[in-house]
Amino acid sequence: MGRYALIMAGGEGTRLWPLSRRKRPKQVLRLGGQRTLFEMAVQRLEPLIPAERILILTANEQVEQLRAQAPQLPAENFIAEPSPKGTAAVIGLGAVVLAERDPEAVMACVTADHFIRDEAAFRSLLVSAFTLAEAGELVTLGITPTSPATGFGYIQMGAALGEYDGRQARRVLAFKEKPDVRVAQEYVLSGRFVWNSGMFVWRADRILSEIGRLLPPLAAGLRQIQGSLKTGGLDEAMVQVWPGLERKTIDYAVMERAERVAVFPADDLGWWDVGGWQNLFEVLQVDGHGNLILAGEGPRPDTRGSLIYQDEGLRGRRVVATLGVQDLVIVDTEDALLVCPRDEAQRVREIVAWLAERGLDQFL
Amino acid sequence: MGRYALIMAGGEGTRLWPLSRRKRPKQVLRLGGQRTLFEMAVQRLEPLIPAERILILTANEQVEQLRAQAPQLPAENFIAEPSPKGTAAVIGLGAVVLAERDPEAVMACVTADHFIRDEAAFRSLLVSAFTLAEAGELVTLGITPTSPATGFGYIQMGAALGEYDGRQARRVLAFKEKPDVRVAQEYVLSGRFVWNSGMFVWRADRILSEIGRLLPPLAAGLRQIQGSLKTGGLDEAMVQVWPGLERKTIDYAVMERAERVAVFPADDLGWWDVGGWQNLFEVLQVDGHGNLILAGEGPRPDTRGSLIYQDEGLRGRRVVATLGVQDLVIVDTEDALLVCPRDEAQRVREIVAWLAERGLDQFL
Repeated sequence: MGRYALIMAGGEGTRLWPLSRRKRPKQVLRLGGQRTLFEMAVQRLEPLIPAERILILTANEQVEQLRAQAPQLPAENFIAEPSPKGTAAVIGLGAVVLAERDPEAVMACVTADHFIRDEAAFRSLLVSAFTLAEAGELVTLGITPTSPATGFGYIQMGAALGEYDGRQARRVLAFKEKPDVRVAQEYVLSGRFVWNSGMFVWRADRILSEIGRLLPPLAAGLRQIQGSLKTGGLDEAMVQVWPGLERKTIDYAVMERAERVAVFPADDLGWWDVGGWQNLFEVLQVDGHGNLILAGEGPRPDTRGSLIYQDEGLRGRRVVATLGVQDLVIVDTEDALLVCPRDEAQRVREIVAWLAERGLDQFL
Repeated sequence: MGRYALIMAGGEGTRLWPLSRRKRPKQVLRLGGQRTLFEMAVQRLEPLIPAERILILTANEQVEQLRAQAPQLPAENFIAEPSPKGTAAVIGLGAVVLAERDPEAVMACVTADHFIRDEAAFRSLLVSAFTLAEAGELVTLGITPTSPATGFGYIQMGAALGEYDGRQARRVLAFKEKPDVRVAQEYVLSGRFVWNSGMFVWRADRILSEIGRLLPPLAAGLRQIQGSLKTGGLDEAMVQVWPGLERKTIDYAVMERAERVAVFPADDLGWWDVGGWQNLFEVLQVDGHGNLILAGEGPRPDTRGSLIYQDEGLRGRRVVATLGVQDLVIVDTEDALLVCPRDEAQRVREIVAWLAERGLDQFL
């Protein structure tokens, strides 16, 4: 009963535009750190799971970059989705690939666009989750909320299921979509809700049988793909079968109606969603003026609470000057500039949509 | 008694930074219009004053650009100041050059960094001023204030001197430096003050004799330069004499203490000081959202009251996106970006000073 990991690394790169792009999504960016989010996602697993048991699912355009950032993984462990089809298809695909290698595979499905400060705590959480998953549970990883955030889904917790490797598991009662702030406040005050991290651990055969029961058309497609694995025809099958699959999310299309769903609430990971520009203030260290300066030196009198990002290639040869500026996000890249207030930054999708509508693909 | 014009075009290019630079001051910029401020300054004179009677005084670095923008003027009418020495030296130099050509020359000293909407009204004002100047007065052009602006000097008017070519002249009682807003309000309410446009008309010999009386060291330097004109040694004299001249402004060092100083108050020119970014909102036409967009097309949801300028060479190949932005100035040039609130834009000199202190001359 081997332990595996599936890293879901197929982001579309809209929320950190213009830094993130279709061909340069946020998980391959370095931002303030030495390592990219993707490199961190791989490396924090490795003490627990050997490189050859880590599978990467990503978009066609990103395979090459991700391989370059994790050369220790076998090249065949990188699998490209020809188009985005939601987490149900991605996880189903990972499950058939792993089940083919090991019929008793237990898989941790993890994200690549979150920041996790305490990697050891994350691995200890995975150990608990693997143990419970090996017993047949569908395990979700929940994050104890630190604020009534409206940018996450929530998981409603029920009865305690006992301790597994030092952590308490609980039954899951419901998955809740992103709430408004009033509802989020109720959730947080009740103490019975956790943020849905989008990370799961389960036996590959268990999740496939739930998909088979709850999403028969997707299951049929996955069986076709599984068949192709035996004849070495995966690439061909992806082209033939994938485009016809339904786009569903695993949380609402499967987990919500599945049996034996458990959650480990975690409060020790230092977990942050690097969702958009506004979130970077939570992840990175601001200076004495509350600024987050990821840019070359420049004159910035009376600049406060602002984020200034500049492409590395521009630093030194292009000066970014700000004057009397407060709580702004300024992103200066080679071919695009974004200026917006911090509390509007989550609307950057509107910018991306505007460009896409006009066919200005060079900026996407 | 010939009529001449001296265009003072030696701006240092700080107030529209990063668009204006040492080598690209605002008078050579096209901004929103088809013509540069310098081209407009020359062309609005031409129906009144033949091209060969228009003298240009400017900085060394700018001579070539200005010649290219006014090729109808004789090349020798462009005179370079080796370094900035204030308006007293500039006007004195112009006066000795013109007096040498025509001992009875009457000269209009005009600026190149103002916008004048009604060029015919401006010429009619000059005609009145020439007539009064030919009678021996030192004539200043005053602008009837439309607001208690603190960015201009003011001229206090006294008794009426009668009508000259349809315009009333008045005696000048005093020149006032830029006031604070309370004082400016008093000035405007009194109806006895006009803005000092920095434009003057007088006989060359009259202003030279006032300089001789009030600024003897400057007068001595000017006599040396005048001597060199007879021997064709102007360039040599400028190098030898100019650096030693005192830096004085004509208003406070000469006019304030001179005799027979008159002013024509004008309210019909559509005159605007293109002083800094904030002033462009008064000169150029804003769109339906109160924005002044001098940039390539781009996504700008909820952008209001803002100025977005982009170098022509960047338009189309670099997108400027703004989101939820209000009353900002954003200037995107090849090697420098400025972001500041509209009401802080006059502080851009601080940016220029910061760069100069650090020897970052490539951005000046």
